[in-house]
Amino acid sequence: MTSPVLLIIDPAGTIATADPDAPQVSVLDLGVTRGDGVFESIGVVGGRAQALEPHLTRLARSAAMLDLPVPDLDVWREAVLRSIELADDTAPELLVKLVYTRGIEGSASAAPTGWVHLFEAGGFDEERTAGIAVVTLDRGYRSDVRDTSPWLLQGAKTLSYAVNKAALREAARRGADDVIFVSTDGIVLEGPNSTVIALLDGVYVTTPDSLGVLEGTTQAAFFADVESRGGSTAYRAITVDELHAATALWLASSGRQIAPVATLDGEPVAQEPALTAAGVEALLAR
Amino acid sequence: MTSPVLLIIDPAGTIATADPDAPQVSVLDLGVTRGDGVFESIGVVGGRAQALEPHLTRLARSAAMLDLPVPDLDVWREAVLRSIELADDTAPELLVKLVYTRGIEGSASAAPTGWVHLFEAGGFDEERTAGIAVVTLDRGYRSDVRDTSPWLLQGAKTLSYAVNKAALREAARRGADDVIFVSTDGIVLEGPNSTVIALLDGVYVTTPDSLGVLEGTTQAAFFADVESRGGSTAYRAITVDELHAATALWLASSGRQIAPVATLDGEPVAQEPALTAAGVEALLAR
Repeated sequence: MTSPVLLIIDPAGTIATADPDAPQVSVLDLGVTRGDGVFESIGVVGGRAQALEPHLTRLARSAAMLDLPVPDLDVWREAVLRSIELADDTAPELLVKLVYTRGIEGSASAAPTGWVHLFEAGGFDEERTAGIAVVTLDRGYRSDVRDTSPWLLQGAKTLSYAVNKAALREAARRGADDVIFVSTDGIVLEGPNSTVIALLDGVYVTTPDSLGVLEGTTQAAFFADVESRGGSTAYRAITVDELHAATALWLASSGRQIAPVATLDGEPVAQEPALTAAGVEALLAR
Repeated sequence: MTSPVLLIIDPAGTIATADPDAPQVSVLDLGVTRGDGVFESIGVVGGRAQALEPHLTRLARSAAMLDLPVPDLDVWREAVLRSIELADDTAPELLVKLVYTRGIEGSASAAPTGWVHLFEAGGFDEERTAGIAVVTLDRGYRSDVRDTSPWLLQGAKTLSYAVNKAALREAARRGADDVIFVSTDGIVLEGPNSTVIALLDGVYVTTPDSLGVLEGTTQAAFFADVESRGGSTAYRAITVDELHAATALWLASSGRQIAPVATLDGEPVAQEPALTAAGVEALLAR
């Protein structure tokens, strides 16, 4: 069992250890009063932070979309690595969560709040092998809102995830484990915490971030592995009809790596267990 | 100057004073990691909490939409009243914020986090008299999403307000003070923190909550005052064209009470200073 590690990053960039069981956040922090901040979750397997640079880059991109002060990625990288060094025991799989908020409301100067929180993860074997039950839910947006209405923050990984959590509760009400959001114009978007990968006519396909989804760090690593083995990948709009007709489907995320979709809206989905096993193995071995 | 008062409500319903300048929230609290909670802001004028019961009712309704444990409104009412009693000096205008989150992630039992935070408000005179510059922004949703997609939580006052804050920054970029969200099908919705009131053909009109907007507590009090003086009010869908042709427009919220819209998308809006003054006076005298 790995004890959680909490490191606070102050506005000057100083990293300090803190007690994760003690309160650390002000009731005036806009992170809690307005969900006004961004985050990342990074898998740590065998003591290695996975896709650390893509996660840091995405943190900075999300921050820019929210007009937050530019995060010092050298400091955040240092905090992630230090949290792993400080772990009293390295469980096979950990997660490091990075949280960066706008800070105390009404502060005279911009003083964002930041922390890095490392904790034990795992228990993903069942999802990675037996797969997950997924339902499609309407995200309510057209697929072009990233460009027409940037204030909707699609493509930013914000702390305002109440809708994502509500969608997962709706999935549970329908007897499912997870969700694939679709746009009002019938385009496949993403999961509340994951990237969709569809095997279509022998090509691994995912939704491009131009359609208002988060760039997937785990999906990118999976695509790199597929390509290294001679496979084909593509970023393009996937229709809901294509989703239902796919050879196989996966949801990719930092904790689970990839989980095969076993049922979609209550209907069985063909699975490719050998491809899944090879993908999980490659992703864990990064 | 009134010193802030913070009261923490524990899961058992016990109310305890706490230091508002000290950290009080865990980094594991879903309120901050996921914006997973609800809130209310109640105006306190001359020591009286305004529209206390409608605010408590709305807190419970928002909580229900998020499947949070049912809040004990007797405890919340007591906390609001006690925070006012504890104020060391009663400034003319205060605000009490109520925050209710899903609590610590991974807790064995549901143990929501709750607090009541009273602080001095004011400085609204300019907005109440000279008025505010407002821009319309596309909310990205159809006006029927409350019914078709309840997981989008439209009509709940959640902590996930990053989009509301981003919309206000977009307004500032356009040289404006505030926003009126409109639906993709051309219906007037609400402000990021306010209710829209339009004077149309002698009738005060606002958007009904069936169109996915928050029920307005200040707007309801304003309508009650208008009706008590023989005026006409209505809840119905307002089109964007009607908005631009209105006799006058106001945004209603707990802090400002009502603020007249001076310009809409850069164009001057007719104002009714006598109606505004009478409305503000009645709302402050509640």
